Amino acid sequence: MARVTFLPAKRSAEVDEGTALLDAATAAGVLIEAPCGGEGTCGDCRVRVEAGAVDRVRAGCLSNDEIEDGWALACSSRVTGDVTVAVPEVEEDRRPKVVGLDGRPVEAEPEPYARRVALEVEPPSLENSFSDLERLERAAAEGPLVCDLQVLRELAAALRSADGRVTATLSQGALLRIQPGDRIAGSHGVAIDVGTTTCAAHLVGLSRGRIVGTAADYNGQIARGLDIISRINYARTPERLAEMRSLVLETLNGLLGGLCRSHNIAPEDIDNACVAGNTTMIHLLLGLDPEQIRLEPYTPTVNRPPPLPAREVGLEILPAAPVCFAPGVGSYVGGDITAGLLASSLATDDQDVALFLDIGTNGEVVVGNGEWLMACAASAGPAFEGSGVSCGVRAAPGAVERVVVDGDSGRASVSVIGGGKARGICGSGMIDLLAELAMHGLLDPSGKLNPDRCPEDRLRRDGRILGYVVVDEGDSATGEALVIDENDLQNLLRTKAAIYSACSLMLRSVGLGFEDVTRVHVAGAFGRYLDLERSIRIGLLPDVPRDRFVYLGNAALAGAHALLTGARARDKVGELADRMTYLELNVDPSYMDEYMAALFLPHTDLSRFPSVSLP
Amino acid sequence: MARVTFLPAKRSAEVDEGTALLDAATAAGVLIEAPCGGEGTCGDCRVRVEAGAVDRVRAGCLSNDEIEDGWALACSSRVTGDVTVAVPEVEEDRRPKVVGLDGRPVEAEPEPYARRVALEVEPPSLENSFSDLERLERAAAEGPLVCDLQVLRELAAALRSADGRVTATLSQGALLRIQPGDRIAGSHGVAIDVGTTTCAAHLVGLSRGRIVGTAADYNGQIARGLDIISRINYARTPERLAEMRSLVLETLNGLLGGLCRSHNIAPEDIDNACVAGNTTMIHLLLGLDPEQIRLEPYTPTVNRPPPLPAREVGLEILPAAPVCFAPGVGSYVGGDITAGLLASSLATDDQDVALFLDIGTNGEVVVGNGEWLMACAASAGPAFEGSGVSCGVRAAPGAVERVVVDGDSGRASVSVIGGGKARGICGSGMIDLLAELAMHGLLDPSGKLNPDRCPEDRLRRDGRILGYVVVDEGDSATGEALVIDENDLQNLLRTKAAIYSACSLMLRSVGLGFEDVTRVHVAGAFGRYLDLERSIRIGLLPDVPRDRFVYLGNAALAGAHALLTGARARDKVGELADRMTYLELNVDPSYMDEYMAALFLPHTDLSRFPSVSLP
Repeated sequence: MARVTFLPAKRSAEVDEGTALLDAATAAGVLIEAPCGGEGTCGDCRVRVEAGAVDRVRAGCLSNDEIEDGWALACSSRVTGDVTVAVPEVEEDRRPKVVGLDGRPVEAEPEPYARRVALEVEPPSLENSFSDLERLERAAAEGPLVCDLQVLRELAAALRSADGRVTATLSQGALLRIQPGDRIAGSHGVAIDVGTTTCAAHLVGLSRGRIVGTAADYNGQIARGLDIISRINYARTPERLAEMRSLVLETLNGLLGGLCRSHNIAPEDIDNACVAGNTTMIHLLLGLDPEQIRLEPYTPTVNRPPPLPAREVGLEILPAAPVCFAPGVGSYVGGDITAGLLASSLATDDQDVALFLDIGTNGEVVVGNGEWLMACAASAGPAFEGSGVSCGVRAAPGAVERVVVDGDSGRASVSVIGGGKARGICGSGMIDLLAELAMHGLLDPSGKLNPDRCPEDRLRRDGRILGYVVVDEGDSATGEALVIDENDLQNLLRTKAAIYSACSLMLRSVGLGFEDVTRVHVAGAFGRYLDLERSIRIGLLPDVPRDRFVYLGNAALAGAHALLTGARARDKVGELADRMTYLELNVDPSYMDEYMAALFLPHTDLSRFPSVSLP
Repeated sequence: MARVTFLPAKRSAEVDEGTALLDAATAAGVLIEAPCGGEGTCGDCRVRVEAGAVDRVRAGCLSNDEIEDGWALACSSRVTGDVTVAVPEVEEDRRPKVVGLDGRPVEAEPEPYARRVALEVEPPSLENSFSDLERLERAAAEGPLVCDLQVLRELAAALRSADGRVTATLSQGALLRIQPGDRIAGSHGVAIDVGTTTCAAHLVGLSRGRIVGTAADYNGQIARGLDIISRINYARTPERLAEMRSLVLETLNGLLGGLCRSHNIAPEDIDNACVAGNTTMIHLLLGLDPEQIRLEPYTPTVNRPPPLPAREVGLEILPAAPVCFAPGVGSYVGGDITAGLLASSLATDDQDVALFLDIGTNGEVVVGNGEWLMACAASAGPAFEGSGVSCGVRAAPGAVERVVVDGDSGRASVSVIGGGKARGICGSGMIDLLAELAMHGLLDPSGKLNPDRCPEDRLRRDGRILGYVVVDEGDSATGEALVIDENDLQNLLRTKAAIYSACSLMLRSVGLGFEDVTRVHVAGAFGRYLDLERSIRIGLLPDVPRDRFVYLGNAALAGAHALLTGARARDKVGELADRMTYLELNVDPSYMDEYMAALFLPHTDLSRFPSVSLP
């Protein structure tokens, strides 16, 4: 046996020698992203050996320099004795998170929707009467090009300023931009995840496909409603619809502007964008009336928006840049899910049935394999995204991401992203907190705090509502204690119950149970880790063998990145949407029963959670 | 022998019985438009028998009602005795002027670039999760449609306001507009000829292809230069280029607005436009810097502009309406010529070599047959369009279109379009005037007035410049006499010399002479007639057998109409442009000699004009 310790979480596990590092991480309750499924190609599971050694079975995508520097792929390295490894922070300009559908990293050869090509255009001549545009078409070996007038107006000068050397940005037979000289290296794209609660973006260098920077922020629409239905209700007049559009555009353009400034990129050098979002978010972003999404038979204006120029969408990048959208399947299974599936192996596995769950403000669940896919949505709420919970925050520096409650003292100790004082608690911290309080009996199975088990100085009373102090005033960045009260706890309980019951009902609808599922892909913006044992302890995730879980992180964003850089991914995502069947949970009479039964920690039916022992 | 008299010109000819009416017209010096080449299909040569009778060999496209009403096709009717026929004024809502490439009238089945289709879209259902756009695509049997956001925003309401019955305007896989109910009948298009001097437009009903109305006006850019080169010189700063664009757009939008008002059509119901114009006019309309057109090697930005939405071009019709352009061949052979060729049989005749000349501000000449085409341009000047000549006007009501000079009195009598007082003299009047003055010796072969032959009261002197009074103060609409002076006469002489010498040089460059040409297609906005004998008398047209001439009228406008309504015409015009070779006259050293020799009435080399007798 050997002890493997994972930094910075300081979690460890005893495993047999020869065990893969990735499995050791699972045993230690540390989920490491491994989207390529252990092929050694994506590099996402890279860890650095800090003490001891491992057997690198495959170098995979690592360079010799990297290996000398101590890096190893968790999927392709075996434990040979006691070892301590560090799981890296998300780095900028590192390899993208997604592998292509052939298992190779998508950056191998970026194929954006609009591509820059460097051309040498022959000079004009009396020998022929080719126009500037015709000579450009000949140089590009493209048939008649369509283009905006503005581009035509710049053509003559561009061709004559660098002896005919120009960079043309081309897409689907259209000339989007013309620049003098070779400007290939400047091409950038953005992958955007428009979440109900959180929006996130990757800035990607398209000459090599690398992620240059990442940014995330709350969706500015939060001020107009926390969940999808309240957003739709708010947007019921044309003025308010326009306001909702402006709010999310402000958020997105804020992210893009920040990325451009940090990385010294001109906004016009972003010539591609891919957006993944749920159907309502896409309608609001495009200024499409979302009303019919709310009303039976729940029919959106569009599931698969055509590519639109950035100027029409309102994104402050190259005005002619095509904005592509991940295709949605229905009003409650949107492009965030099809994009997310791209970042998992679920859609390509041949026979084995797998489960995909995206834990966001709406919780979406997909079950299926390489042949069939079925999807449903559950109105989970934003509790795990730090919204709708009084002390909740996004997983960002200052957020409590780990919580341990001491069974004797009943006090919590926390770890904060980036160190320092705590601003609030993010999703992974909330899961820890719920689980730890329940494990030590401070919380009863129905989500009520037990005043007998809570030390008096940890309790807060606001009228009849009890609260538990997680972080004292002195350790809080705001100077106010971080308290979770019973309303918060009920919100968290409803969220986890919605997700679990959707999974359960979905499987039952196809005659399967959790035991039939060979792999559970978990997506969600929880930060670097999702604590597996604690997620199962609270009944968010099913109690199945731990090695069946794969944590994908923000899969919608990773999928948007794949769509941004890969032509095959864009084809593939359409096929996924084509063969996905949408199951409307709201019309299933047994949904409410299933949901009510899940409103316990972990569940009213304890036989479903054999590994959980009550305190 | 029988006497055939043509009204309203009151010209007549003695011809053998059995002669085709069309040939009788030629013999009488009346050119009737017959673009279908005597096939009886286009109906453009229709005349009405006012006295006597003709033998209608073929009814062609005439209905029985029309025949009973006295109508006959000049190409398909034979003279059986003395007869008087009226050549109709250009009517509104009559058949279009152009036949399809298969010889059938183009309106047989209009195939505009953007077409309206009436659809019944299935209602939304819980059974599937098809979006509004997907159900529309299924109803239209079209793959994924691209569309502007504005259209998407209107889709949900449109589908729900008339039980799923909608009219979609589709073009090349794009959804341009969605309207509730069946709006097929409202679809209109505009065919536009953007001339250096004159702009003209047909408003066309696209459900049947009929011309609803026609309008013409001077190009507002005239105030900034009469010819192409002076326009290019004027437009040398971005501000002036923008001004030139505004000026022509004002002209065009004025024409379109007037047509819409007169015919009670909403501008948004014009969902197609086709534009023919020379290369410089198209550059100025699109705001493209024309500078390189003027500078060797004479290279335009674009010969074949891609279809552009009306909102980008600036035409005040449906903003998303595609504006198609007739393809140009070079800086001085533009889309007006390729469109004009469509309106002639030149491009489809198999072996026989024909000549096409478009007498406009630039005179363009094409020679060739069904296998090869060669084109050149001559800077003719706008004299025949009523510009650059002091008393010149467009062929419109109030214009002198016929002039006869009495050999004895030396006085001119005139006929005015629409009757009443004369506002000025149009192109056909100028040709008559030159010819009549020369025939009676009032003008010497070099274009100088002969004071000895002019009655004193017909002469005006302004310094050393002599002028001839065509219309007295009392018969003039302006109250001032219409006088043509020697500067005007020199302008006219230069214009006709440029055109004749271009024809002559072009033929010589391919080893041919006028005698080898089986047909001469003459295009130009001269009004209803072009007097053949007088055009030959002044040396504008070559002295070849009269039956070789075909008068096409405004061929560029007719061609734009063909492009507007026919998919095959749009294909064909591209082929024409492909196989047309451009000959740059300016670089041919013998051009100036040829031009100088033509600066006489009719020519310095009288052997070229055997039928002309000098006074």
